[in-house]
Amino acid sequence: MDRLTVLKLGGSIITKKGAAEPTLDRENLGRLAREVGAGYRAGKGPLIIVHGAGSYGHPIVKRYGISKGCSTPEHAFGFAETQKYQNELNCLVVEALLAEGVPAMPTQPSSMAVMETRPWKVKVGGREHEIQIHDLVSMPLQALEGFLRLGMVPVLFGVPAYDRVQGCSILSGDQIAPYLARGLGGRRIVEATDVEGLYTGDPRKDPGAKLIKEASSLEEVFGYLGASSNTDVTGGIRGKVLELFRILGGSGVRAEFISGNVAGNIEAALEGKEGLGTILRL
Amino acid sequence: MDRLTVLKLGGSIITKKGAAEPTLDRENLGRLAREVGAGYRAGKGPLIIVHGAGSYGHPIVKRYGISKGCSTPEHAFGFAETQKYQNELNCLVVEALLAEGVPAMPTQPSSMAVMETRPWKVKVGGREHEIQIHDLVSMPLQALEGFLRLGMVPVLFGVPAYDRVQGCSILSGDQIAPYLARGLGGRRIVEATDVEGLYTGDPRKDPGAKLIKEASSLEEVFGYLGASSNTDVTGGIRGKVLELFRILGGSGVRAEFISGNVAGNIEAALEGKEGLGTILRL
Repeated sequence: MDRLTVLKLGGSIITKKGAAEPTLDRENLGRLAREVGAGYRAGKGPLIIVHGAGSYGHPIVKRYGISKGCSTPEHAFGFAETQKYQNELNCLVVEALLAEGVPAMPTQPSSMAVMETRPWKVKVGGREHEIQIHDLVSMPLQALEGFLRLGMVPVLFGVPAYDRVQGCSILSGDQIAPYLARGLGGRRIVEATDVEGLYTGDPRKDPGAKLIKEASSLEEVFGYLGASSNTDVTGGIRGKVLELFRILGGSGVRAEFISGNVAGNIEAALEGKEGLGTILRL
Repeated sequence: MDRLTVLKLGGSIITKKGAAEPTLDRENLGRLAREVGAGYRAGKGPLIIVHGAGSYGHPIVKRYGISKGCSTPEHAFGFAETQKYQNELNCLVVEALLAEGVPAMPTQPSSMAVMETRPWKVKVGGREHEIQIHDLVSMPLQALEGFLRLGMVPVLFGVPAYDRVQGCSILSGDQIAPYLARGLGGRRIVEATDVEGLYTGDPRKDPGAKLIKEASSLEEVFGYLGASSNTDVTGGIRGKVLELFRILGGSGVRAEFISGNVAGNIEAALEGKEGLGTILRL
């Protein structure tokens, strides 16, 4: 499916991310949905949307501690309750998209996802590092392929998912997006967050931080990246980049990081415009 | 999983079924959730819940005509919108169960279900009939098995699903329940609806209609059954019975039809009590 675009809407642009309780950013979501509608109709290619959890996920995941596993009845209850919040957020995102004429099909990834927490070796800066990853081992895509064939826009989302090693892991949208591009032969991922792309430092703290226009290896990106304040249970910006190269390295897929908060960006990206932020050639 | 019980909560007992718009039966749902909580804790075995759609499904399915397939952009939009309503209802059912301490895990079947509309031959009353069925061809259960292993109670629900022949079919809870019992080796299905079991006629119209206490073949049940007013897009009582025998005939699984509107029935059934309505020996 060569023309498939996977659009990731970060939790930071659809919810009030810092909020202690699940809080939608209704105004931003409405604007984003309008842009998706206009861009999708102009772009004419198949589209999948994956959204993050923002304040619908991180506070509750931390409260129950389920990102580290599921080994008690309290964890099991927390896993279930967290999932319910994600489904509520997904209904709100889908509702906003339907209101703009997008045939947005809610699709819960944890219904079918199996994960595995395991060590993974990666070479960065001339040294080999062994890190713990939460790997999406399998997620059957037959139904989802059917939705695309029927002309729908599946809307997936970050969720707590079954992990055959530690019981539960967080399956983030940052892992779902490249998994889908790989499984369905998509050539383009657009990651819309609350910053304009990848920077050499934290642009909110360091006035000298520069936007990275383009990069084509993990080594290159990690060489550029400074400390990022944008960390959450799914691993922040380094986690996003790591998952892209781990899952899609060598595939030729293009991942673009753009700001969803700049009006018109998402619409332009879906219409095919490039160079709005950072391009990673995977 | 010998001790697994699959509990079906009919759309008629959790929603106001006759309503033209999606309307929850909040009071009944609260009571049912309390009974499920008490019965689940007393029963001690693994449990899966499957609920129907009632007024969250039938009016909108009929409006878009998607039970007959999906061949236009309007159908695709209707498919997506219908699914959104089902997910909203599922969130409300899960919320009520969580409030009663049940680790209720929302699980959207259409994320992974593939259906196929095809003819099927069945012999009833000495004659062979060829009927059109909407068969659930595949629904991967690895994640769901994981949820059970972790001590959660997966909560599935009737949905519009991808059909590889006609684009879309209604995957009813009446088909999901026996599919799960077969796939997971469950021995018992409890179907809670708004009547006390299967009757020889329509008990709301025919004062002479008698409760069928027990039956062990499709031939026997269809011999007993009169006209049922309880028909909907998923095929009413005959459809329920047909799916049970088609999917589980010869398996030794026990399906019990009870009234969810009689207080204490669901709790007693989950505690292991039998003979509350009609028993089908499949």
